[in-house]
Amino acid sequence: MRLAVVGAGAVGRAVADLASEYDHVVTAMADSSSAAVDPDGLDVEAVLREKSEEDRVGTLDADAALDAEYDVLVEATPTTLDDAEPGYGHAVAALDRDRHVVLANKGPVAERYDDLRARERESAGQVLFEATVAGAIPALSTVDDLGPDHVTAVRGVLNGTANFILTRMAAEGLDYEHVLAEAQDLGVAEADPAFDVDGTDAALKCVILANVLYDGGYTLDDAGVQGIRDVPGEALELAAEDGRTIRLIGSVEDGAVRVGPRLVPEHGTLAVTGTRNIVQLETEHAGRLNISGRGAGGPETATAVLGDVGRLPPLDEV
Amino acid sequence: MRLAVVGAGAVGRAVADLASEYDHVVTAMADSSSAAVDPDGLDVEAVLREKSEEDRVGTLDADAALDAEYDVLVEATPTTLDDAEPGYGHAVAALDRDRHVVLANKGPVAERYDDLRARERESAGQVLFEATVAGAIPALSTVDDLGPDHVTAVRGVLNGTANFILTRMAAEGLDYEHVLAEAQDLGVAEADPAFDVDGTDAALKCVILANVLYDGGYTLDDAGVQGIRDVPGEALELAAEDGRTIRLIGSVEDGAVRVGPRLVPEHGTLAVTGTRNIVQLETEHAGRLNISGRGAGGPETATAVLGDVGRLPPLDEV
Repeated sequence: MRLAVVGAGAVGRAVADLASEYDHVVTAMADSSSAAVDPDGLDVEAVLREKSEEDRVGTLDADAALDAEYDVLVEATPTTLDDAEPGYGHAVAALDRDRHVVLANKGPVAERYDDLRARERESAGQVLFEATVAGAIPALSTVDDLGPDHVTAVRGVLNGTANFILTRMAAEGLDYEHVLAEAQDLGVAEADPAFDVDGTDAALKCVILANVLYDGGYTLDDAGVQGIRDVPGEALELAAEDGRTIRLIGSVEDGAVRVGPRLVPEHGTLAVTGTRNIVQLETEHAGRLNISGRGAGGPETATAVLGDVGRLPPLDEV
Repeated sequence: MRLAVVGAGAVGRAVADLASEYDHVVTAMADSSSAAVDPDGLDVEAVLREKSEEDRVGTLDADAALDAEYDVLVEATPTTLDDAEPGYGHAVAALDRDRHVVLANKGPVAERYDDLRARERESAGQVLFEATVAGAIPALSTVDDLGPDHVTAVRGVLNGTANFILTRMAAEGLDYEHVLAEAQDLGVAEADPAFDVDGTDAALKCVILANVLYDGGYTLDDAGVQGIRDVPGEALELAAEDGRTIRLIGSVEDGAVRVGPRLVPEHGTLAVTGTRNIVQLETEHAGRLNISGRGAGGPETATAVLGDVGRLPPLDEV
């Protein structure tokens, strides 16, 4: 497949870097202010070097990537809320040209799922978005294989930053503020950690799962969200005395989307440690499935993107 | 899709029972000595009642199912070794008619993988076999999504009977023979438990994984296999003193297929309890993925079969 990669953060760069290993060609790449295009395939190494040295991917306007020759648009710009722009517009531009879209950007599938599916129905292209839920963990493809109607609930640890903080608080008996500073030093938490520690990121993933399970209708406004800022170190100590610990658990069950700190068994399946994520699927006929792995990171998320690309039919067959 | 279900054990019966929930029609069903065929779709409930009451699925010869109208042959007869008959012959009969084959029977993909793939190449039909490795756990589809070249190793607990026995031995401080008798009473172990406790079943699953990872070339003869009969209760006690326990671990790594009792951390990811299975994939770019769930059972395995059926292209598009 010929890929146009829009967004040159860790995920976009990793997609471009790994594409050739999966026998794909990158014909266009864009960051927020520039683009590089070559219908015969970009010299990805040179483009990534230019990004690193000059903070641009090429000399063209960013929009040039959207107009380039490609089969699949990989949308890897930062997640935005509400109108989910510019990611949503990028996806629509590809669908309007009867091209496929693979999203790493959570905004369009969390905030404008119904709009996006409506545009997909009018297109010969398809939309896939495995990378938006828990990075390398094959959550959506497993739901798809089981059939959404046969999945009765989803629960999980869906944010590595919050999980790292809770794990360290429990292990070291430290308070939230101490551990946050440590996580920021390690690069596990952002300077502004709100998106992760307030539960927004986990909630977006749950909203996406709800849209898949219930065929749309959900946005972030439909989620009940509580973060981890107010979890006292003492709560973790008390939990430990009882063989339990606290995790930021997201759930989609009986039509409700919720994220919040929950008591879980200390050595139980949901108590993954550090930055790991876990997705737990309750199924109608096959019991409970647990899938754990790396929920973030450039190559990890790029692997999910490239898995989606591999699942798409060639466009001449569409 | 129109399904011909060959084999009327727990898995075959569950596939027939659940097919309509996945919008498929069962046009033929066979056990070892009889068949029922209806090109418009069998009354599955009546067929299963006849199986239960009369120990036959219909009044036709068993071979009639192979000659029926169908899109997908579901091969769910008991696993056999060496020539893998009659399962292998059933699969070839379907491929020769340019039909798809979905296997729950491990024999053909463990013992005659290369032969089967050669026949598939000459057919318009495809062969899928998710159900042969760890029941409901989506091991093969995840390998397929990652790309076999990008999976560097697979490890796992792949036999629920052996895992139940080891779990009970550790929890109760009992010897193998005591727990085996209990497992037989509970129906978790067969009267002749050799296939499970000697590691053969786990080894077949590893051989199938090796064939997928390395594009064929493996049979059971290539696996180094040790079972759990000789694990003394004391070994589990000693392991527990050190925070560890023993599990029957199968692995495919660096071209080698091995099954045997191994020390693992007591609360670690591989130490699943009871009859649960786990598959651990080491990937080149996405770190380690763990998938745990029910590795056996009629509806659980049927779910994997029906997931495969859903992945197959309509035959008129082939």
